[in-house]
Amino acid sequence: MRTAVVIGTGLVGTSAALALAGRGVRVHLVDRDRSSAGTAAALGAGTEEAPDGPVDLAVVAVPPAHTASVLAGAIRDGVARGYLDVASVKGGPRRELEALGVGLAPYIGTHPMAGKERSGPLAATADLFEGRPWVLTPTPDTDTEVLNLALELVALCRAVPVVMDADAHDRAVALVSHTPQLISSMVAARLAEADETAVRLCGQGIRDVTRIAASDPRMWMEILSANPGPVADVLDRVAADLDETVRALRGLESADEDKRRTGTGGIEDVLRRGNAGRVRVPGKHGAAPAAYEVVAVLISDRPGELAAIFADAGRAGVNIEDVRIEHAAGQQAGLVQLMVEPSAAPALSTALGERGWPIRP
Amino acid sequence: MRTAVVIGTGLVGTSAALALAGRGVRVHLVDRDRSSAGTAAALGAGTEEAPDGPVDLAVVAVPPAHTASVLAGAIRDGVARGYLDVASVKGGPRRELEALGVGLAPYIGTHPMAGKERSGPLAATADLFEGRPWVLTPTPDTDTEVLNLALELVALCRAVPVVMDADAHDRAVALVSHTPQLISSMVAARLAEADETAVRLCGQGIRDVTRIAASDPRMWMEILSANPGPVADVLDRVAADLDETVRALRGLESADEDKRRTGTGGIEDVLRRGNAGRVRVPGKHGAAPAAYEVVAVLISDRPGELAAIFADAGRAGVNIEDVRIEHAAGQQAGLVQLMVEPSAAPALSTALGERGWPIRP
Repeated sequence: MRTAVVIGTGLVGTSAALALAGRGVRVHLVDRDRSSAGTAAALGAGTEEAPDGPVDLAVVAVPPAHTASVLAGAIRDGVARGYLDVASVKGGPRRELEALGVGLAPYIGTHPMAGKERSGPLAATADLFEGRPWVLTPTPDTDTEVLNLALELVALCRAVPVVMDADAHDRAVALVSHTPQLISSMVAARLAEADETAVRLCGQGIRDVTRIAASDPRMWMEILSANPGPVADVLDRVAADLDETVRALRGLESADEDKRRTGTGGIEDVLRRGNAGRVRVPGKHGAAPAAYEVVAVLISDRPGELAAIFADAGRAGVNIEDVRIEHAAGQQAGLVQLMVEPSAAPALSTALGERGWPIRP
Repeated sequence: MRTAVVIGTGLVGTSAALALAGRGVRVHLVDRDRSSAGTAAALGAGTEEAPDGPVDLAVVAVPPAHTASVLAGAIRDGVARGYLDVASVKGGPRRELEALGVGLAPYIGTHPMAGKERSGPLAATADLFEGRPWVLTPTPDTDTEVLNLALELVALCRAVPVVMDADAHDRAVALVSHTPQLISSMVAARLAEADETAVRLCGQGIRDVTRIAASDPRMWMEILSANPGPVADVLDRVAADLDETVRALRGLESADEDKRRTGTGGIEDVLRRGNAGRVRVPGKHGAAPAAYEVVAVLISDRPGELAAIFADAGRAGVNIEDVRIEHAAGQQAGLVQLMVEPSAAPALSTALGERGWPIRP
């Protein structure tokens, strides 16, 4: 790939342009908002000049609702040899393109699984996609050359290509991204009108479950509006478990021994299926979550405390795999949980203990 | 308080005994399982010898299902001036005690909001309760002397006393602890039978939402069985939001413009109420979550990388408030998000940048 057009210079488009430009591809930047394209060009993402003739690849990075029409226009104008989009849903844009009567051979739908809280070209970075899955949805109609251009883009962005059917992709993101967002919001919503005293009892569990409930409602409305069916299908199954659990809990309230027994079984089943599902969530390096051992250390709130712990761990030759910091309510002290390979835990405990850190067994 | 009996030498009982013994209280240890009491005594939590006469305070730390009968026995035997339990629910044990015909004046129900994944006396530590809320549920019948003994215990354990009505406590933990546990399990359960390709697309959002789904089902069955009504009440309200959201999503699938508009409004409402609830979750030091600024740094997977970052942050005089490490799927590199006071963020970015760290803006 020598030349590309990026249409839509928001976070994703500009980040892809930066990655391509940084690896020697000549990138032409287009945006309905000229100042956005100008910003991207100033960041080194490419040029605002129009290309002399067709480029190798056109990357369409506009909101889902405009993806099909922008793609259709670009294909009709013949601006490139191959065309892809990066919208967060894949079934709808493809069907809209078909309805517009455009030949789909030079097109492939894609979705990089990367983003951040901020949007726009100023939030873009060349390494946004590094190590992230980038879904490609070729069909039997897709030109092999176009698939290879897309794979080259993914490689230049240092992402990990994952080939999926467009509708399977939409069901997958409904499951692993869109449903958790809505459920997190629903749990957090219960706190909106709670007593202040109840809220004071919040611990790390609800803190984790509700973290993404802080997300931008407008951005999520765009995403959910483009994938309502698959999300509703997953929520229907969550609702079935929820109804069953409420019924089981009401059984536990009852004096009837049979109902109590059935209740216990129903709830334990949900908890056990939860265990089974959680084990599948990829941890570090995309693998199943490693069974790390936790070394817990109590620290004060002075600057440099964490630095000193990490330095001591480094001196002991131990690689910290993950960290969790739990601040105690109403106190200046905090508990640091250092997650390490099980074989490294005794050495780390000993090393930190010798240096006077209060280890919590 | 000079003398105490701790009945039940599991994690919580032994931790309280260690805190009391460490501050000069003579603690007598009792457990149905003699080896458990022996272990606690060996750890320095007190003595297995019986007291000469009534002690100041009896701490009952047995499973919820046995709490009332053990309390009733101790009160009838007159082993102490005051009695408290530490069970994770408070309404049931009190009503059971009343039904057993025991005078409740010398009793106060309490619940320390602390725990860990491991149980038993070997997991106990004197600082388990440091800075954690410890709920006290006095009634007009409670002797003032008994309330003061309980407050003294909480102070000796360095916990933060929170006075609540017993039933209000049970509704609060249903909201902030028991419901998030079940909902997390239900989201994780959906992954149990998902396609491997779908599971590969999991990101940090679902990872956080499902973290506590790894919890022990048997322990949770004990907790939920003791509080079924309040948990079912909260889940009923979550179910109402869930049903409304499914209906709204089905509306978005429809061609009818009115249905689409209603659907958008309904979903956006849930997301906005989620925002409002999330803001109330206490962060560091029990206050509302501080608006930290994130400084993101890309690191390799070598030992010492984190140590070096933290050391450099310490040298710049910046206190890291929280850390999140996001490992890229299929890659050795990871993204470290350093959370700092907004005023400290520019200094930290500059300091780390000058030392060659790849900062992601």
